[in-house]
Amino acid sequence: MKSRDVLSGRQWLGRLEKGEDILEAVTEFARRNQIRLGIIQGIGALQKAKFSIYDQVKKQYHEIVLDEEAEVTSLSGNISMKDGAVFCHLHITLANGEKKAMGGHVCPGCIVFALEFEIREMIGEDFHRMPDEGTGLSLWEI
Amino acid sequence: MKSRDVLSGRQWLGRLEKGEDILEAVTEFARRNQIRLGIIQGIGALQKAKFSIYDQVKKQYHEIVLDEEAEVTSLSGNISMKDGAVFCHLHITLANGEKKAMGGHVCPGCIVFALEFEIREMIGEDFHRMPDEGTGLSLWEI
Amino acid sequence: MKSRDVLSGRQWLGRLEKGEDILEAVTEFARRNQIRLGIIQGIGALQKAKFSIYDQVKKQYHEIVLDEEAEVTSLSGNISMKDGAVFCHLHITLANGEKKAMGGHVCPGCIVFALEFEIREMIGEDFHRMPDEGTGLSLWEI
Repeated sequence: MKSRDVLSGRQWLGRLEKGEDILEAVTEFARRNQIRLGIIQGIGALQKAKFSIYDQVKKQYHEIVLDEEAEVTSLSGNISMKDGAVFCHLHITLANGEKKAMGGHVCPGCIVFALEFEIREMIGEDFHRMPDEGTGLSLWEI
Repeated sequence: MKSRDVLSGRQWLGRLEKGEDILEAVTEFARRNQIRLGIIQGIGALQKAKFSIYDQVKKQYHEIVLDEEAEVTSLSGNISMKDGAVFCHLHITLANGEKKAMGGHVCPGCIVFALEFEIREMIGEDFHRMPDEGTGLSLWEI
Repeated sequence: MKSRDVLSGRQWLGRLEKGEDILEAVTEFARRNQIRLGIIQGIGALQKAKFSIYDQVKKQYHEIVLDEEAEVTSLSGNISMKDGAVFCHLHITLANGEKKAMGGHVCPGCIVFALEFEIREMIGEDFHRMPDEGTGLSLWEI
């Protein structure tokens, strides 16, 4: 386990509007406000979704397209730095009317019906994502 | 995306007791403590549940009744104002012993077996829910 | 509902490394840093998992072993005191490539592929877990 202690910074409460792409909208917001480190939480509903599951053997993401509406029972993630730019990493849990939940890593293509979120900035040394050989992912160099 | 920056207010950690209704208990707590804006997170287990999935075409909630016990792997939501009163909006992810998760929008009828929660108040201008034509929901007017 | 108001304490952002056991690593971190009260949130992926569902009639945990990789769409829990020691209570939502989510109470045996977490300490009177007759669980005596 690797960690750093951080301090609380700015904090926002808001909502995405119908038709917005979660990852694009949150990333743009974070960049515009220069949030270099932070936490995101949210709930809502999507018109359709695209998320991925990481194949740990092939070391590549397997994308899942959901062409149906779904509730967002949990949106959870963080903001940090990658390649010199503000970067958002989000995971989502979705649920539908057949009493079935699914989810994964949020890709571009998660189109909002309505979504309410909180963003909490953290103050501290930058967290930079760097290529990690063991996993094939971009992980924080701490 | 529409948002406002907020400040941290009071904070509570606690638990609901066996037999309590999540939505009723949390709403009563928020009203008694005059929490006009805030975030709720929790984990635990329910004796039975009632949650809903929003039908985005018919613009009405479709209710699901679960007459079985389930773990709460995530309870997530917010507190804001609606029709002049403190109002709680919660989503839940449930999981059972058949390796199956489900969930949605928390309705009255989520009966607690045990539930541990955190509530964080936010200080700022009130967030009022108002009818939104595009979705049929009550969304924050920001 | 029973609760106490608390204040914000220290805060950490970090990641678990491939091969670490979530519950062991988080518990060791909390004990080393003497975090007596707090909240944990995280996202990531597991190589394999062990979680449990509480049987509310038999009053015992039913363990589920998952010998497959899975995304962690939500890790959520708290830190408090039990039997005089720092104790972590975590719930997890997992999702796989077959558009299926599952989850429950985190047991030893949730082996990390990659996991990013936030821990927020809370300052206040200790929360002690004590045997609760009605549920058979160890619940906070508030």
